[in-house]
Amino acid sequence: MKAIVKNRKEEGFDYQEVEIPEVGLKDVLIRVKVAGICGSDLNFYEWNSWCEGIVNRLPFIPGHECSGEVVKVGRQVKLFREKDRVSVETHLPCGKCFQCRNGQPNICQNMELFGHTFNGCFAEYCSVPEAIVEKIPDELPWEYAALLEPIGIPLRGVWEGQVGGDSVAVIGCGPIGQFAIGVSSAMGASQIFGLDVSEKRLTIARKMGATHLLNPAKESVIEIIMDLTHQNGVGVIIEASGDSKALSNSFKYLRKGGKVFVIGNIKEPLVLDGIADIVNKEVTIRGLHGREFFKTWWLAESLLLSGKLKIDPVITHKFPLKEFNKGFQLATSGKACKVLLFP
Amino acid sequence: MKAIVKNRKEEGFDYQEVEIPEVGLKDVLIRVKVAGICGSDLNFYEWNSWCEGIVNRLPFIPGHECSGEVVKVGRQVKLFREKDRVSVETHLPCGKCFQCRNGQPNICQNMELFGHTFNGCFAEYCSVPEAIVEKIPDELPWEYAALLEPIGIPLRGVWEGQVGGDSVAVIGCGPIGQFAIGVSSAMGASQIFGLDVSEKRLTIARKMGATHLLNPAKESVIEIIMDLTHQNGVGVIIEASGDSKALSNSFKYLRKGGKVFVIGNIKEPLVLDGIADIVNKEVTIRGLHGREFFKTWWLAESLLLSGKLKIDPVITHKFPLKEFNKGFQLATSGKACKVLLFP
Amino acid sequence: MKAIVKNRKEEGFDYQEVEIPEVGLKDVLIRVKVAGICGSDLNFYEWNSWCEGIVNRLPFIPGHECSGEVVKVGRQVKLFREKDRVSVETHLPCGKCFQCRNGQPNICQNMELFGHTFNGCFAEYCSVPEAIVEKIPDELPWEYAALLEPIGIPLRGVWEGQVGGDSVAVIGCGPIGQFAIGVSSAMGASQIFGLDVSEKRLTIARKMGATHLLNPAKESVIEIIMDLTHQNGVGVIIEASGDSKALSNSFKYLRKGGKVFVIGNIKEPLVLDGIADIVNKEVTIRGLHGREFFKTWWLAESLLLSGKLKIDPVITHKFPLKEFNKGFQLATSGKACKVLLFP
Amino acid sequence: MKAIVKNRKEEGFDYQEVEIPEVGLKDVLIRVKVAGICGSDLNFYEWNSWCEGIVNRLPFIPGHECSGEVVKVGRQVKLFREKDRVSVETHLPCGKCFQCRNGQPNICQNMELFGHTFNGCFAEYCSVPEAIVEKIPDELPWEYAALLEPIGIPLRGVWEGQVGGDSVAVIGCGPIGQFAIGVSSAMGASQIFGLDVSEKRLTIARKMGATHLLNPAKESVIEIIMDLTHQNGVGVIIEASGDSKALSNSFKYLRKGGKVFVIGNIKEPLVLDGIADIVNKEVTIRGLHGREFFKTWWLAESLLLSGKLKIDPVITHKFPLKEFNKGFQLATSGKACKVLLFP
Repeated sequence: MKAIVKNRKEEGFDYQEVEIPEVGLKDVLIRVKVAGICGSDLNFYEWNSWCEGIVNRLPFIPGHECSGEVVKVGRQVKLFREKDRVSVETHLPCGKCFQCRNGQPNICQNMELFGHTFNGCFAEYCSVPEAIVEKIPDELPWEYAALLEPIGIPLRGVWEGQVGGDSVAVIGCGPIGQFAIGVSSAMGASQIFGLDVSEKRLTIARKMGATHLLNPAKESVIEIIMDLTHQNGVGVIIEASGDSKALSNSFKYLRKGGKVFVIGNIKEPLVLDGIADIVNKEVTIRGLHGREFFKTWWLAESLLLSGKLKIDPVITHKFPLKEFNKGFQLATSGKACKVLLFP
Repeated sequence: MKAIVKNRKEEGFDYQEVEIPEVGLKDVLIRVKVAGICGSDLNFYEWNSWCEGIVNRLPFIPGHECSGEVVKVGRQVKLFREKDRVSVETHLPCGKCFQCRNGQPNICQNMELFGHTFNGCFAEYCSVPEAIVEKIPDELPWEYAALLEPIGIPLRGVWEGQVGGDSVAVIGCGPIGQFAIGVSSAMGASQIFGLDVSEKRLTIARKMGATHLLNPAKESVIEIIMDLTHQNGVGVIIEASGDSKALSNSFKYLRKGGKVFVIGNIKEPLVLDGIADIVNKEVTIRGLHGREFFKTWWLAESLLLSGKLKIDPVITHKFPLKEFNKGFQLATSGKACKVLLFP
Repeated sequence: MKAIVKNRKEEGFDYQEVEIPEVGLKDVLIRVKVAGICGSDLNFYEWNSWCEGIVNRLPFIPGHECSGEVVKVGRQVKLFREKDRVSVETHLPCGKCFQCRNGQPNICQNMELFGHTFNGCFAEYCSVPEAIVEKIPDELPWEYAALLEPIGIPLRGVWEGQVGGDSVAVIGCGPIGQFAIGVSSAMGASQIFGLDVSEKRLTIARKMGATHLLNPAKESVIEIIMDLTHQNGVGVIIEASGDSKALSNSFKYLRKGGKVFVIGNIKEPLVLDGIADIVNKEVTIRGLHGREFFKTWWLAESLLLSGKLKIDPVITHKFPLKEFNKGFQLATSGKACKVLLFP
Repeated sequence: MKAIVKNRKEEGFDYQEVEIPEVGLKDVLIRVKVAGICGSDLNFYEWNSWCEGIVNRLPFIPGHECSGEVVKVGRQVKLFREKDRVSVETHLPCGKCFQCRNGQPNICQNMELFGHTFNGCFAEYCSVPEAIVEKIPDELPWEYAALLEPIGIPLRGVWEGQVGGDSVAVIGCGPIGQFAIGVSSAMGASQIFGLDVSEKRLTIARKMGATHLLNPAKESVIEIIMDLTHQNGVGVIIEASGDSKALSNSFKYLRKGGKVFVIGNIKEPLVLDGIADIVNKEVTIRGLHGREFFKTWWLAESLLLSGKLKIDPVITHKFPLKEFNKGFQLATSGKACKVLLFP
């Protein structure tokens, strides 16, 4: 089969012929219909210091957002059969650690990662343990199904934040931020502030349901948000930019008693004012790492099927798998939002 | 001033001239702009056995859903001044009991009731303690402002139920049920089942956002809901009919782990199957009595102002105050949904 | 091996020689050290109408509360090896239904039951899928380990009820009620009312930490509890008697805003006053069916090891397995609380 | 009457004769029985840069932790009368802001502070608005009643943290930390790590219920806690030291999915690792500013009256009011824990 492979510790991927993966006793072999490019794939593509720290296996096939059709199942697979339409969760929990045995598999201490510690979906086929495969409804288009994974993270923040009737600020309008805006809108947020330095992304944010667009490079975000919230500040912040200064800053326009959900890849040290930012405001800060399987999947499906969540504006580009370089260059340049590949 | 008065323990109200109420030290005198007819007003109008049990004061001016303009404030009033646009909460907590001193004034043990234990809003003016008066935004129409009170109760259930992406069944499509449907839709419920025996009300439910209309007099509700939820049942039930059998019945189409919010005036004994309905299903049943002041007010305002909650379909009739008899007869007959009076 | 077997649809069990069970690919063979008699075992013993309704397989080995040592593991078992000290969860979820795929395996729609739909622990050995086996700390005595299962259910109610500093009423002082009292005491409940008609059980309740003992057959429970709670009522009720009238009654001494956890096997219809019991009081009623695996196991272990939960008073009798008849007769007669069997 | 007064922007207080305070319409005049010295009083005593920033009124009577007897009530006071035994909340909310009108008066935007923006309790009498006065049970000793205020803050963290059966680390064993340990123990925490550089305070922590004492100046805290929690880390951290580095550090021994409650006066910038500390661990960080009136008061009373919370070890010194200098010097030196003054 054809696949994208990370062969060397340097920029770029190779498009090459590889063996169709073997199917273990509990594995499901999936013919990939649609695969999405995620921020971590961009890291692997450009090969930066973050990769040096975590990649301990080469070569590997990247890619972890996908939908596809089951073409073969391992002998002990119970949940799936051929022709099932499915989507895949990225995190493969160990099943043994404290968190796995306490209902928190999404923060497993020994997580394996689809598209990283085992081969991913930038290929014609992928083989995945059934534990992290999920059936999708017949009516759900393949393209939407491929994006259930990235929708799930911001959905958790919005759902926990109980945003209905409240105000929300979303920092960073990449795909995760856009989904945060879309789900906030679907779940009744009355004011939705979309923050990004890219005007292109702000235009998409408008389509996703943002009621106010703010460009921190041009505007005084704190002052504007405080004015538009009667000097109370926003009730919920969803950080999806990875920018530690933007996150620190956001506490100044957070309402007393407000909640901050941190999703972004905050690489720089985060500096907070303990008294003013945390204690006096009685804030709640929640880190969100991944999805709840499969609650967030099912909620995202329902929102998409009901029409309350529309994600077409986020999907800016589509390419055949072999033209992946175009997609990665667009995504890296900030000219694209979500890029889909079709094997 | 002109007012509607309950003078005698018999059917009907009188429309008569009374004194403009005095304004106590902490009271606000309000010129009533719009008043809504609630189910408890219907009880007072027809004078039934429920009234015999609880009314211990005659005459009184009924009515507790209203909006209006402040025309005078008591000498110790701090929050309001003349010309303020306001809405009124019905429950006046004592401030002394365990619940009042523990952040739960809405379940005060010694509640006074606007339009019942002290004079209400079916009049040109009403005088209300500032503790239960709330300012409303300039942009909010008087008619919507008069309905913040009844919207608040179902809003609590929908908000606590975290319905975004989930399925909801609303039992009874009177005004409370209609608002439950509208708020569920605004907060992202993907399936909303509206149940009522009145086709007229089901038609309104459709406009409010119900995705499925069910008439228990004609259809097998349990079977239909189970089919449409893949035999899992609904995640959230909001009971707004007061019918104890409909409520008992609803546990059969409730999902395992689901939540039931009880708002309706359940006069008949409620009979449940302890094992099947409660224990084995691990249900949560929550009684909701009134609003949270003023959290639910503010959330309802935001939803209305954002356009995500539209309540026009619920307001079926409007009359000048002196034509109140038309309104009460329509409301009692089931031909109307929410009736507004204009003093 | 020797085992207790339910062979016929009539009263009693047989003590007989049976084959040591086979060990499936994912099964763990356990040499049973201690087994506890539960209320459902009593039902099987006496063979009543409840059994007629649910038992569809004979013969079977009953018993589901146990601790023991692993003596053999199936070829695909990952979590255990020989000599591991373990305890067993009763509920074997299907892994396929909505609840299983949404983090709620304890309310699986297709639950298999250890000691009922597959053979249990009233035997020298039992074979159990590793999914419901849990390792126990070295320091935890076998007898305590055998009771982690029944402790887990009331522990959930007490934990969710956040009883620290609050008042709790426990209806029914059988083993489940006693554990509810013990855990409430360990978690800081300041007033703990133990209710039972058996003076013997009330004596044990005192040892478990009940601060007030009430015999509903002799005393006016509502009046006493209201007096001792300054007429506010108790904050949390844990129903462990299965008596529907006792449960209905308890709403009269529940505080406004209070919580009721229902664990008992409520066979008779439960009749509630919708307005007074549920709506006006804004109560929360929660059914609890089983444990959370393995969160409640681990919490119970910690409480036992820390010495904050002491359960010796609940264990009133111990017999060798072959003398099971003595145990069942004592348990049925109400003369015993928890009876342990030693294969 | 005699009172301690802060007259000048320099170190020290004066002990002098002042007028007995006037009693406003809604005020309660209290004869102070016992007053506690808090960390903010120490700041006022030594007059540091923090004081420069916030004190805008001189002279004033400091002190805000007290119990006493009502000797006079204002004409509009409803809740109290002469001879009532009472305790006082420090935060006087405005009643007008968003938070006050939404059930969160403890994070009022315009808080007045007893013993700071209006005169406090280091005096024979103090006059306090009835809104922040709370009756105390007859059986509760005056000394305990004076400490309900400082107990309330850590109690919130422990209560929200649902520590029963779980492990807790308390950073800083000053009075707030000691109360955190005591309440954790009363509410069933199975492992309680007390951290402080003062051996004297660690000795008190042992008496309050800490199961493990750690001196960060001498021991490798992270390694020890990880070892004692089977490499999982603690479930709950309560920061009561004000040391930003100790707080940053604590994320390394926090369990994945754990909770951090921040109470301490974190004056230095707090530096966190966004990915490792927050996102990947899915932590929850909660700032706690003050108490919930009067829920935490009532819970603290119940715990003290039940005997489950014992605070005598924390009260290390008692002085007549006029010997306040001794108390302040001991408290500043770290030789004392909680110091009580008797007017």
